[in-house]
Amino acid sequence: MPFTLYQKDLSTDARLGTLELPHGRVQTPIFMPVGTQGSVKTLHPQDLESLGAQIILGNTYHLSLRPGSGLIREMGGLHRFSSWNRPILTDSGGFQVWSLAKLRKITEEGVRFQNHLDGAYMMLSPERSMEIQADLGSDIAMLFDECPPYPCDRKYAESSLGYTLRWARRCKTWVQEHQPCSGEGRQHHFGIVQGSVYADLRKRCAEELAAMDFDGYAIGGVSVGEPEEEMLRAIDHSVPWLPEDKPRYAMGLGTPPQLLEMIARGVDMFDCVMPTRLARHGVALTPDGPMHIKNQRWAADMRPIDPKGHPHVTQFSRAYVRHLFKAGEILALRLLSFQNLEFYLRLMAQAREAIAAGTFGSFKDSFIARYQANDIL
Amino acid sequence: MPFTLYQKDLSTDARLGTLELPHGRVQTPIFMPVGTQGSVKTLHPQDLESLGAQIILGNTYHLSLRPGSGLIREMGGLHRFSSWNRPILTDSGGFQVWSLAKLRKITEEGVRFQNHLDGAYMMLSPERSMEIQADLGSDIAMLFDECPPYPCDRKYAESSLGYTLRWARRCKTWVQEHQPCSGEGRQHHFGIVQGSVYADLRKRCAEELAAMDFDGYAIGGVSVGEPEEEMLRAIDHSVPWLPEDKPRYAMGLGTPPQLLEMIARGVDMFDCVMPTRLARHGVALTPDGPMHIKNQRWAADMRPIDPKGHPHVTQFSRAYVRHLFKAGEILALRLLSFQNLEFYLRLMAQAREAIAAGTFGSFKDSFIARYQANDIL
Ligand SMILES: [Zn+2]
Ligand SMILES: [Zn+2]
Repeated sequence: MPFTLYQKDLSTDARLGTLELPHGRVQTPIFMPVGTQGSVKTLHPQDLESLGAQIILGNTYHLSLRPGSGLIREMGGLHRFSSWNRPILTDSGGFQVWSLAKLRKITEEGVRFQNHLDGAYMMLSPERSMEIQADLGSDIAMLFDECPPYPCDRKYAESSLGYTLRWARRCKTWVQEHQPCSGEGRQHHFGIVQGSVYADLRKRCAEELAAMDFDGYAIGGVSVGEPEEEMLRAIDHSVPWLPEDKPRYAMGLGTPPQLLEMIARGVDMFDCVMPTRLARHGVALTPDGPMHIKNQRWAADMRPIDPKGHPHVTQFSRAYVRHLFKAGEILALRLLSFQNLEFYLRLMAQAREAIAAGTFGSFKDSFIARYQANDIL
Repeated sequence: MPFTLYQKDLSTDARLGTLELPHGRVQTPIFMPVGTQGSVKTLHPQDLESLGAQIILGNTYHLSLRPGSGLIREMGGLHRFSSWNRPILTDSGGFQVWSLAKLRKITEEGVRFQNHLDGAYMMLSPERSMEIQADLGSDIAMLFDECPPYPCDRKYAESSLGYTLRWARRCKTWVQEHQPCSGEGRQHHFGIVQGSVYADLRKRCAEELAAMDFDGYAIGGVSVGEPEEEMLRAIDHSVPWLPEDKPRYAMGLGTPPQLLEMIARGVDMFDCVMPTRLARHGVALTPDGPMHIKNQRWAADMRPIDPKGHPHVTQFSRAYVRHLFKAGEILALRLLSFQNLEFYLRLMAQAREAIAAGTFGSFKDSFIARYQANDIL
């Protein structure tokens, strides 16, 4: 069993675990920086190591379009190609087809679409998604699912869930036949719980996937425009039906307070583009909430953005980072991306410490209270 | 004397020296990466240290517009503001007024112009340039000069040279009155030899500046669109009249072969935006000449761009850097900027070693032959 659960919180469902993967051990709860095109935006792998990244995410849709999964396989897989020797999780490509591609048509076979780069017609199916992810050689591959929109009526949600479950079986069959690897080890596979806002559909999906015995389970169909209550409800409607001895991953989420709320509900893994996207908009994340670095009030502020942050960023003043951002200097994007991802990884480390100490509930409440007060001095 | 000359080449005029500055010792010949707006494009100060930068350049024109030299003075000077603790040279601002500003009007007082950011009218004079550079607290400040265009008729060149020499005296007076500092030490000041293509004007300028006794001397009025022969002629017409015991700096130049040609003529210091500008255009500099990383021939090439380069770059394949560049990933610009600046600094270290070993002439010839063959395997 690659997942070891070695402590549970008393007052919440938070849990502490380790996930043994071909490229190393991951401590959970964990946040995974997103390396869409084989690079976590603006950062060097050395930066990722020094900010504490244990596992990163690669996007199957983007990488299969450019440079192509065949080339990456030829180059020795995504780890070697991108010079990242720690674990990688790849998504199935389905979510980006859903959000980026044009003229999407779903059939039993899979999804036919026009890609967003050159408009060429392409087909993504359960087998093709598994094959691409096998070429990439990620430590964890996600099953190819159908992600319903929000809102979504009951009839569509039921029909969509049918695809997700039948496609999960086809993915399973492909994996059993091809035994894909990640480096020296076996590639792991996570099923994705769908079912939209319908509790019984979430339960049915979780139970059927659990019966198929995957290495872990994701909660999908979130981060699709739903309000926060629906997002947390989707977690609540899925987690209870998932096996306790497998890792749980909430896809594409969320804010720092949301991450803590989901950890309290028993979720172990997260990914989100928000930290790097906010960096590009000049926002630094701090324990006192988001800081808009362009704000005039930082123009002559000699203090670091986040005094408890990493020396790579604390060596600079708010005034300097503000100047760089306003002047369009790339170093500003680097420093804000580093800060925001380091802040997310630090939050995960603090959460793990609090679970270990049996104080996760109070840690969560005090973190959220301070963060949401947004009282940046 | 801050400049110590401890070896001269036998077959050329190349020389080996050290320059003691308030923020550290610089070994010459040296190349200075350009940090236009208080940041060497895409790079962190840690990167600059690891690629071997000993001194960097800051642009008075850009920094005085944004964030303003008053703010930088308040923040403790440019070193502290930009978190760079090694030496900094600042230019006078004159060259950027000449190349970027609109509606430039030269009078005996100085240059009145509209800045390129918001079009506001501004005045740059010898005293104002010295004052701004004193606020920045650079280790070396350049005198405010008048840079004639190329080509330039004799009459204009003579009149322009009059400004340069009279303004040099006013700079000298300002410095004597204000005794500007750089950190714990004295700010150093370099005069600039102008005179366009006219040998007698170059000689007159060099001799008059030498008589005023500055800490070093630059050759200006190059890198203004002149052909390479004129550029080297400007060096030849200036260097013989400069004191041997002071450093010589060729402003805004040049290609790797040009740098070696100028070192052979007794020049000690260089700066150029070419390494970082070429990086933005997808060009990597290597011992075998410039490599266009977008080229299809590197699409599946697993070798590093420059096998003798720095591990920060050699850990990646040509195929990967090509992918990053084509996908618009900032990491591509970082890696190419790092490579190109590291290549320039490596070239300077090799030149210093060759001078010390008495083999500079043959080193220069073999480097240039290989570089210009541009036979990248
Ligand atoms: Zn997100
Ligand atoms: Zn240049």
